[in-house]
Amino acid sequence: MTESLVPETRVLAVASHVVYGHVGNTMATFVMQSLGCEVAALNTVHFSNHTGYRQFKGTRATAQEITDLYQGLAQSHLTDFDVMLSGYAPSAAAVKAVGAIGIDLQQKAASKPGSFFWVLDPVMGDQGRLYVNDDVVPAYKQMIQHADLILPNQFEAEVLSGIKITSLATLAEAITAIHRIYSVPHVIITSVQLFKLSQSGTTPSPPANFLTVIGSTTRSDGSPRLFRIDVPALDCFFSGTGDMFAALTVARLREAVAAAGQDLSTTRSWVSPDSVPATDLPLARAAVKVLASMHSVLERTLEARDAELATAPAQNGDVGADEPQKREHLRRTKAAEVRLVQNARFLRDPQIQFAVQEWWKDDLPAELQ
Amino acid sequence: MTESLVPETRVLAVASHVVYGHVGNTMATFVMQSLGCEVAALNTVHFSNHTGYRQFKGTRATAQEITDLYQGLAQSHLTDFDVMLSGYAPSAAAVKAVGAIGIDLQQKAASKPGSFFWVLDPVMGDQGRLYVNDDVVPAYKQMIQHADLILPNQFEAEVLSGIKITSLATLAEAITAIHRIYSVPHVIITSVQLFKLSQSGTTPSPPANFLTVIGSTTRSDGSPRLFRIDVPALDCFFSGTGDMFAALTVARLREAVAAAGQDLSTTRSWVSPDSVPATDLPLARAAVKVLASMHSVLERTLEARDAELATAPAQNGDVGADEPQKREHLRRTKAAEVRLVQNARFLRDPQIQFAVQEWWKDDLPAELQ
Repeated sequence: MTESLVPETRVLAVASHVVYGHVGNTMATFVMQSLGCEVAALNTVHFSNHTGYRQFKGTRATAQEITDLYQGLAQSHLTDFDVMLSGYAPSAAAVKAVGAIGIDLQQKAASKPGSFFWVLDPVMGDQGRLYVNDDVVPAYKQMIQHADLILPNQFEAEVLSGIKITSLATLAEAITAIHRIYSVPHVIITSVQLFKLSQSGTTPSPPANFLTVIGSTTRSDGSPRLFRIDVPALDCFFSGTGDMFAALTVARLREAVAAAGQDLSTTRSWVSPDSVPATDLPLARAAVKVLASMHSVLERTLEARDAELATAPAQNGDVGADEPQKREHLRRTKAAEVRLVQNARFLRDPQIQFAVQEWWKDDLPAELQ
Repeated sequence: MTESLVPETRVLAVASHVVYGHVGNTMATFVMQSLGCEVAALNTVHFSNHTGYRQFKGTRATAQEITDLYQGLAQSHLTDFDVMLSGYAPSAAAVKAVGAIGIDLQQKAASKPGSFFWVLDPVMGDQGRLYVNDDVVPAYKQMIQHADLILPNQFEAEVLSGIKITSLATLAEAITAIHRIYSVPHVIITSVQLFKLSQSGTTPSPPANFLTVIGSTTRSDGSPRLFRIDVPALDCFFSGTGDMFAALTVARLREAVAAAGQDLSTTRSWVSPDSVPATDLPLARAAVKVLASMHSVLERTLEARDAELATAPAQNGDVGADEPQKREHLRRTKAAEVRLVQNARFLRDPQIQFAVQEWWKDDLPAELQ
């Protein structure tokens, strides 16, 4: 039995719930619990399944319901959280309600620097497309200044920075802008397709079947400390991987900050001294473990998916009612659900090691060096 | 790493959700996931915390919302469950909606005996008192005939059997009546205070600080096959222990049935041949492991509670508003939350062994022998 090195961590997780499958809190809760965290899941939607199925039933929590649940906790003194992880909320008003919770927890912890940390996943869209209402964007833009770490994907980083990421230089500019505009000390951009951006860089870019994760913790002058990790991409889209990334990051960052010593864990926002190079940042060390766990879980999910798809589709009365194309989409979507519980050991014990590299200064445009 | 012997198990868990603490699905989901089960949690209420705090906020799902979530699963062919575990539902209509789900799953599995198993916790009350509306009782009475295993506490067994349990003889009569009235093949009555009932029996009763769990699987003639397990009671009330019992029982019963071989797992309701004595029943073998896990988790919870209560109460602005007595109740209730995640290893690897005994025939009244 491997004992976790993650210190005792109470997390308020605010995100969606689905009955079947693993996305949002239905992903994040088990991931963090597997690493020993005590998780309070405040669910922002109650759906039967994730929207990738193209059909679902269920209800969305109103902003008032989200606020009420938090007030229920507050009135019974159940708000002693070390970390908040906030993800999808179903409307601009709900996003603001979640923001108010984060701000309240931050104020309660104001006298003890480092005692509360807010990880915010600004869920707005992907692949060049918003999948929330337009008014959600300004709601996030007002809120992010309060977060300690944000986890946008490439598209969300563009929305937040106002910079179209078309090259390594513009990627660096976007991160720099996010640090500056929102004063947010930690950023990770998940899933950058670096090979598409490599024209302007001098570092050899990874091959096309790799994804790159780029992270940064600010220095005291506000400049970014950039690191990058290249990971082999798997040939399948899995829902909930962003939530898995965020949940693992919560636990592994707590672990890395604790390992860095008392001084860091009592520093506001856990920002390492300027002397710490990018590759030694707790954020970088956490990301290496996070990506190792994810790669193993997703690799095994892919195997299980392929095995499931290789078996003949079940034939029963229900099935006959669907169009063959729809039926096949449902079958493929179900087969690609992350095999989370079955592979929990890889959450606890990452088995492989990805290299973290400093994003060399000579890759950066002159004004950022 | 201990590999679980629980076979792959997909569970639909229908019960309450709380943000903070561990009761209902917020207990059962993690317990079953820790034992490798794939759990789909359909939440019947969304509360901030359990009602033992004497205050909470949140919403209850309507019967229609429960039905909709299930229809959402059904329309996307996501109902391939091996087990359903149903617990608290917030109204008679909601109980009926849950019942309709169980019946539908049963009908879908009708051509494959043993491929679906329904564990029903008829949550109605405790300690001589209903804590649901009166109309919930007939809703359960109509539903239980469809369940494979029910897990009433002593009071709920009285309500269902119509027999007041005042002695060992009346306890045996109540179980016999439940088997007969509802044709339910497996029953476990949790937490019988046997020392209070021992006057009429000849078996030495355990001391007053023991609790007894009584279970039975019917024989082919409908007669009970009774076993009992005595476990030391802990001097504290913990919320969610019934849900922990139920969730562990799902996983451990699957394991025990699989160990008994293919014939049993393809038998309707997993009822062992008459030749199997009470103490060798999969239900009895499961209960032994269930109680061992629970005892270890609760023993450590008690230690952690005492340590928490020994520290001075936090003083902050929020606290000042409460009456001291209320504040102390909230503090004690919070301190008694089950330390579930921290003790997950005891869920996976039960460390102790309680003895299971046949409930000797000569203890039983003559007409039951």
